[in-house]
Amino acid sequence: IGAINDDDVGDELGSPWAQEPKRHALLKPASKRPFNAEPPIGMLADKFYTPNELFYVRNHLPVPSINPDEYELELVVELSNAQSNRTFNLDDIQKMPKHTVTAAIMCGGNRRSEMTRIKPVKGLSWGPGAVGNAKWSGARLCDVLQAQGVQPDERLHVIFEGADLDPTAHPYGASIPLSKALDPRGDVVLAYEMNDQPLSRDHGYPIRAIVPGTVGARNVKWLTRIVVTDSESDSHWQQNDYKGFSPSTDWDTVDFSLAQAIQAMPVTSAICTPMPEERVKVDKDGCITVRGYAWSGGGRRIERVDLTSDAGKTWHVAQLEQENLPDGRHYGWSLWTARLPISADQQKEQHMEIWAKAVDSSYNVQPEAFENIWNLRGVLANAYHKVKVKLSQ
Amino acid sequence: IGAINDDDVGDELGSPWAQEPKRHALLKPASKRPFNAEPPIGMLADKFYTPNELFYVRNHLPVPSINPDEYELELVVELSNAQSNRTFNLDDIQKMPKHTVTAAIMCGGNRRSEMTRIKPVKGLSWGPGAVGNAKWSGARLCDVLQAQGVQPDERLHVIFEGADLDPTAHPYGASIPLSKALDPRGDVVLAYEMNDQPLSRDHGYPIRAIVPGTVGARNVKWLTRIVVTDSESDSHWQQNDYKGFSPSTDWDTVDFSLAQAIQAMPVTSAICTPMPEERVKVDKDGCITVRGYAWSGGGRRIERVDLTSDAGKTWHVAQLEQENLPDGRHYGWSLWTARLPISADQQKEQHMEIWAKAVDSSYNVQPEAFENIWNLRGVLANAYHKVKVKLSQ
Ligand SMILES: [Mo]
Ligand SMILES: [Mo]
Repeated sequence: IGAINDDDVGDELGSPWAQEPKRHALLKPASKRPFNAEPPIGMLADKFYTPNELFYVRNHLPVPSINPDEYELELVVELSNAQSNRTFNLDDIQKMPKHTVTAAIMCGGNRRSEMTRIKPVKGLSWGPGAVGNAKWSGARLCDVLQAQGVQPDERLHVIFEGADLDPTAHPYGASIPLSKALDPRGDVVLAYEMNDQPLSRDHGYPIRAIVPGTVGARNVKWLTRIVVTDSESDSHWQQNDYKGFSPSTDWDTVDFSLAQAIQAMPVTSAICTPMPEERVKVDKDGCITVRGYAWSGGGRRIERVDLTSDAGKTWHVAQLEQENLPDGRHYGWSLWTARLPISADQQKEQHMEIWAKAVDSSYNVQPEAFENIWNLRGVLANAYHKVKVKLSQ
Repeated sequence: IGAINDDDVGDELGSPWAQEPKRHALLKPASKRPFNAEPPIGMLADKFYTPNELFYVRNHLPVPSINPDEYELELVVELSNAQSNRTFNLDDIQKMPKHTVTAAIMCGGNRRSEMTRIKPVKGLSWGPGAVGNAKWSGARLCDVLQAQGVQPDERLHVIFEGADLDPTAHPYGASIPLSKALDPRGDVVLAYEMNDQPLSRDHGYPIRAIVPGTVGARNVKWLTRIVVTDSESDSHWQQNDYKGFSPSTDWDTVDFSLAQAIQAMPVTSAICTPMPEERVKVDKDGCITVRGYAWSGGGRRIERVDLTSDAGKTWHVAQLEQENLPDGRHYGWSLWTARLPISADQQKEQHMEIWAKAVDSSYNVQPEAFENIWNLRGVLANAYHKVKVKLSQ
């Protein structure tokens, strides 16, 4: 990937970068080739459904250009005693029962820039904006698989391949357990719509796998091939990336085969407003208003978000805006608002640090700091979000 | 409960305490009436399956005495348009297909005594031994419910009632979502065997609900009634206990209706050997051996356990002993062993603190300390386990 991420690659006709789509001017690139960008953090909590054009973009390779009339999605089912193949075109998928699910998609490296401050890591320097929340519509993968006669089997995996190719013409790939794909409560969708609009090219046109509750990297865009088989994807991104390690594991000692590929993500939250170093006015009731998002993987609902402006001496519970969906199937994010009382002493100080921590429906909670969750790839950066602001009366 | 937990209640014939079973001498009582006790922490990691007689006992009320020939289990299905009732005897349950699941059961208050050191809480002073791991066998609840025609419905709950009665003759009760009960991967069992032996009276003879991955309180013992209905159990233990709150919520401000009843438990671990203040010999390779358990709720496998003897400067990954079961269905605990190198400087110090933290398959991690997860009931006490030991050469 390093080689591709080179900004001086030409984009003359025939270059893999010649057909990149136009992007919204507010998206801040973490890298341009492949294009990776997040929206301004201050806008992220404005809307429960992130506007499509401001949704973070995480591309691993050049964006493919797909003619919808020629689009084909191949499904291969490899069982020990039999193999079946079937090819769908776009119309086949769109004729199936349409299922809609609200799901936040989060990059495994979201908030990496905070972890990097402890010690450098390998990876794009994401702020807390490598996440977005959308309504995704398409055919349910469980319906597609059941129609092909696929039965539950704990040993099997579902591999997704995209139309995006690396320089050796290998596609982007990732996999999930078959149990997730077959579970009706798993809500895995072959999505052709994002917030009621056809997918844009940056988000996987014409079809993207949406695996709610699961790290962004498994939500494969420009989906061209699905394989049900007895091993995980052999792709770089499944095998040698997107895994967590102990803080003492370094590039000399790491053995990627010893860690499990990230699937469900841990609980996290971020303060969207005020932004770092922003000057905040204390209102007439002596409070400031803080707003942000919280999310947990695996369909776990956010139970509570706690805020403190005095390093944990007093905690204030935020109001949550979230869908009324049951635990285990709550895939959207929660937006939250808290009013924090600011003491007279704090107002004299002028500087103040706000901390946010979320608790999910399993009562898992964010870790306090990055030191003890640091890992060499800078993924899973879910420590308390801490934002320093300036106060004014 | 307070009133019942009174040690000077007489146990003359006719007293509800007259028929308490005999207990193993090594079980350390946290309270005698009702009987609550845990095994010595130093023995807990000796065996992957906790011996039945050393398995922690968490009783909320006196132990009922049930004649197996007269035992009846009532199943009530209350749907909006219909109600059905069916009664099973012990033989009916034992004739159904037998399903075995390994599951750790953990009290919601496990490790409460560590949280209490920050600030007092209401609850029994459990050490880290209010957990055990066993093989449970019985009829699958999903089979029982499907035979009664129960269909998936996200709004429904399954209420369990025990034969143990409070002084007003109300039974112990708790509930779980129907989605957990109906999911074949949920592995909920109406168990009549624990580690291949009939349940003992302290563990729910003749039948106990085993809800793998879910806090002990929902694993109702002496099961006499199951109700499928559109609300949670109205019991004290479901409504006004076993819930988590912010550290700043106190008994004057708490509103139990605002928090969700604990179901799946968060990731945790404990060091079993060495024990606190134990004198530990550094071996010829300059190491000490540390052993313990780790577990996470919701069927989440333990991914990794990290140990440090220098407050996080260096972390050492433990070897895991665990079943080879898929994520989401991995209900047993993991035992672990780590060899920690002890530096020459540490050996001079004579005192040392060891920390353990576990990471589960969602890459959720234990919080570092109790200050910011303190709650007025002292539940969910899953911060790093920290044990001070003395060193000898
Ligand atoms: Mo990602
Ligand atoms: Mo408990």
